[in-house]
Amino acid sequence: MKFSRIPAAAITRLSRYTRALEELDSQNIKVISSEKLAEYCDVNSAQIRKDLAYFGEFGVRGVGYFIKELLFEIKRILGLHKEWNLAIIGMGNLGCALIAHSNFAKQGYRFVAAFDVDPDKIGRILPNGISISPLSELKKICLEKEVDIAVIATPAGKAQEVVNMVTEIPIRGILNFSPSQLHVPEGFVVHHIDFTVKLDRLAYRLSHLRPSDRPRGSDNPPWVSKHLL
Amino acid sequence: MKFSRIPAAAITRLSRYTRALEELDSQNIKVISSEKLAEYCDVNSAQIRKDLAYFGEFGVRGVGYFIKELLFEIKRILGLHKEWNLAIIGMGNLGCALIAHSNFAKQGYRFVAAFDVDPDKIGRILPNGISISPLSELKKICLEKEVDIAVIATPAGKAQEVVNMVTEIPIRGILNFSPSQLHVPEGFVVHHIDFTVKLDRLAYRLSHLRPSDRPRGSDNPPWVSKHLL
Repeated sequence: MKFSRIPAAAITRLSRYTRALEELDSQNIKVISSEKLAEYCDVNSAQIRKDLAYFGEFGVRGVGYFIKELLFEIKRILGLHKEWNLAIIGMGNLGCALIAHSNFAKQGYRFVAAFDVDPDKIGRILPNGISISPLSELKKICLEKEVDIAVIATPAGKAQEVVNMVTEIPIRGILNFSPSQLHVPEGFVVHHIDFTVKLDRLAYRLSHLRPSDRPRGSDNPPWVSKHLL
Repeated sequence: MKFSRIPAAAITRLSRYTRALEELDSQNIKVISSEKLAEYCDVNSAQIRKDLAYFGEFGVRGVGYFIKELLFEIKRILGLHKEWNLAIIGMGNLGCALIAHSNFAKQGYRFVAAFDVDPDKIGRILPNGISISPLSELKKICLEKEVDIAVIATPAGKAQEVVNMVTEIPIRGILNFSPSQLHVPEGFVVHHIDFTVKLDRLAYRLSHLRPSDRPRGSDNPPWVSKHLL
């Protein structure tokens, strides 16, 4: 199987499937048909089958998918059968919000180190029990704590400088929340979070709501999107 | 043209194309081939042509796309030829970080109102010049300021209550940063931001880096992703 040929969008859909399967599992549902799962994830069932087919055969014809089993397999594919250690750099509002957000821990991502340059912040204990360290100790602490992924939450002007330090360690995975484009050497993976891409989809949907789809209508087709990405 | 048939992923890619085109435009580049644009956006050129074909004919055979023109057209398609007024509810760390993030204004999204229930926060002036209002004035202020989209940055336990108030106004577009699933009546559009979906893609990429792709290699294929979503 050539992993490099698998489209990024398929990987993103696998993430969505895991969120849906986890929710179904928490409701104690054991088996689901690909049609029902597709409906739940807001894709078509052929898409689910195609995405899974990149990685092997799943599900039982005429029965569907065993939820716990499929969840286990997708998590293994995505590399989520292990915990990932995160270091966050930049403990302003965004950094603090990310540390406190419950989604990370729920999905197996653990903040094990936090850094800032502000002497007033250094030493402060965060809600998850770790304390803010000075950026000068980035390499030492990241090696000690076996950090896999660096989360960049610095102001735009500082992001590249920080990333240069990260790639020196080297930490190969970088999640960038700053609004700046980052340059990294080959062999590193950077993903950029741009909240406004999601807003563009919302703007598009709102721009093309037909008058009959508007609130206060009665038997309109549902335009309400699934809560999943 | 049936807007409802256009896949959500195509809309997300249009967003990515606008980010790329804006960057190229800022570099004063006038024309780009679909191959070059595809490379820039990390998709294949057939994909770009297919995505644009949903909406009409763009580009000149043998020449490529005129950047300003294509940017104008895609923004019109996405509904970004107008400014969108946002209200943010929940002025904790995340709310403050979002208000301060430069990407929103750059893409035509304007925070015109902010709400919280904490008496200590109410009345505080934010960096963009607006002040925090009490949640009890949500309807009045949102109607006055012609809010199009509500951004939910409350703790999980409060999100549904706030959304019920939002759908009463009614504001039809909701961007949800809280980690809770939201229920809305028909005719409303909710998009959920889950940072961890992007982390899953990063985890997948890191899990499947071949040893030869690792840092310190020399002539490895580039595994470095584009900065765009």
